[in-house]
Amino acid sequence: MPKPTPSLELVPQARAGNRRAMARLISRAEAGDDECRPALAELYRHSGRAHVVGITGVPGSGKSTLVQKLAQDIRASGRTVGVIAIDPSSPYSGGSILGDRVRMSELAADAGAFIRSMATRGTLGGLARASLDAVDILDAGGYDVILIETVGVGQDEVDIVKAGHTTVVVSAPGLGDDIQAIKAGVLEIADIHVVSKADRPDANRTVTELKGMLSMDLQPGADIWRCPVIATSVEPKSGIDDLLGAIDRHREHLASTGEIEQRRRQIAGNRIIKIAEEIVREDFERRRHGQFDDLLERVTGRRTDPYAAAVALLSALRENISHEQA
Amino acid sequence: MPKPTPSLELVPQARAGNRRAMARLISRAEAGDDECRPALAELYRHSGRAHVVGITGVPGSGKSTLVQKLAQDIRASGRTVGVIAIDPSSPYSGGSILGDRVRMSELAADAGAFIRSMATRGTLGGLARASLDAVDILDAGGYDVILIETVGVGQDEVDIVKAGHTTVVVSAPGLGDDIQAIKAGVLEIADIHVVSKADRPDANRTVTELKGMLSMDLQPGADIWRCPVIATSVEPKSGIDDLLGAIDRHREHLASTGEIEQRRRQIAGNRIIKIAEEIVREDFERRRHGQFDDLLERVTGRRTDPYAAAVALLSALRENISHEQA
Repeated sequence: MPKPTPSLELVPQARAGNRRAMARLISRAEAGDDECRPALAELYRHSGRAHVVGITGVPGSGKSTLVQKLAQDIRASGRTVGVIAIDPSSPYSGGSILGDRVRMSELAADAGAFIRSMATRGTLGGLARASLDAVDILDAGGYDVILIETVGVGQDEVDIVKAGHTTVVVSAPGLGDDIQAIKAGVLEIADIHVVSKADRPDANRTVTELKGMLSMDLQPGADIWRCPVIATSVEPKSGIDDLLGAIDRHREHLASTGEIEQRRRQIAGNRIIKIAEEIVREDFERRRHGQFDDLLERVTGRRTDPYAAAVALLSALRENISHEQA
Repeated sequence: MPKPTPSLELVPQARAGNRRAMARLISRAEAGDDECRPALAELYRHSGRAHVVGITGVPGSGKSTLVQKLAQDIRASGRTVGVIAIDPSSPYSGGSILGDRVRMSELAADAGAFIRSMATRGTLGGLARASLDAVDILDAGGYDVILIETVGVGQDEVDIVKAGHTTVVVSAPGLGDDIQAIKAGVLEIADIHVVSKADRPDANRTVTELKGMLSMDLQPGADIWRCPVIATSVEPKSGIDDLLGAIDRHREHLASTGEIEQRRRQIAGNRIIKIAEEIVREDFERRRHGQFDDLLERVTGRRTDPYAAAVALLSALRENISHEQA
């Protein structure tokens, strides 16, 4: 078997928009392969140009189909588009396996669009890290708009979707009380609300409910972003152009108010802390059957306490890191 | 104002079961006061004798009243009991303020019972740490059984309740579909199921539903713990004695099968990792407007990448830790 191309050698190709090079780097990031770390670092330094849009919604909200139509409209506007679809529940990875994505085949044949599904391989934390690496890769590869699509349940998915500059939350008609239930966690992070399946008779009620909820939060001021509620339908197609218009307006709002800088700092800060927590967890896992086991023995035997054990592990972790850096 | 007694000087009194000393140490642990760390370490070394029982359930399941009745039955069996009630939603702390706890006043006058409510002061992670510190304090103070009561929503609460040797999950009748919703996160951690409000007509249906769900998981084997479903009622009082019987049987099961050792290791391992993550997060917070801010600037300016920034922060972390240890 020929030796695989070193990741660093794939960087110039990825930056030139070579799809195969980008796909290979994403796979390596997904596998958590340390070999690709310097390549990812290099690509990160050449990222920052794309508009990253996080799209989330409850299962059954028709989110995936909406993302497909939105991607087509972005292409029709003359821009390139990348799609990272995150599917934590799927045991598969690599995109083409997911039946759902077959419907994206129209875009798959288009060189100006890049679609990739990512699934949990081990921890959800690892998935979050890998999907943001994938965003960097597509960003450095020159895609104008990058859509991150996740199911909107759980803190980790919320963290992923908050890594976008613009956050779209998709609700389906007839959710009723469920809206209240997910409100606390997800609705409040929306820059744009979408009510999908606008062809259904109860869609209007959901739009009204959402608008009612939002009006309570309204503050005066010209610079305040007023979160729109957009009804969309895929068949017959309607509202997708309004959604793209709102996404573009939000980007202009971020730029003109200078809010974009604050967002970038927030996104970077969250990402750094998440990576650090994952490094800690991975390091502890590696030490199972070694130092960690000895410490566990000492803690359960009451010869030391959990706090001292945590400090000891963190000290050892730092020695490792120093060796790695050296 | 007189200088407060150093925490280490309170340790002998706490170990002798002095309620005032224990209460003060719990307050200091709750405040996240570093001064009490050596005292907590010392008390941890003298803990490990108590049977710790985690009790969780959805809001409105009548969990608090059930815990009160259970605590009275434990006292009636000739044992001492400590109760740590965790109330993340409450802005208050310190137990006596919470109206709910007034009903526990019967026990409050009893020297063989210790009741304490704890509420979020800052992060829920901090609450988890402080409530397990409180369990150690009561354990070292000689209480035979310690009940940890939490609302069963969210990962942090699940983590707290898993810190018990025995986990009781309380369901209320008429939950219907909600049972499915919370099933994944909470039901599976139960060693004992309780259906509260057994006086209500729909209680039987909930018992049947739970039993149906459990029968799917049944594996053969004499050493397997078969999770009982117990219907309880407070007024008229019924089933509480069955619940206490099941708790005692579960403790015997853990001891006779040797499973207790495995649980202790699991509990200690989770606790160490959580503490480490919290140390990392607190350390980053402390460095806001310092090193962290500089790094953020470099990351958003694309002069370094988030992974390198996380590694740099973890490297600096240990310098802090080493100083603390020295």
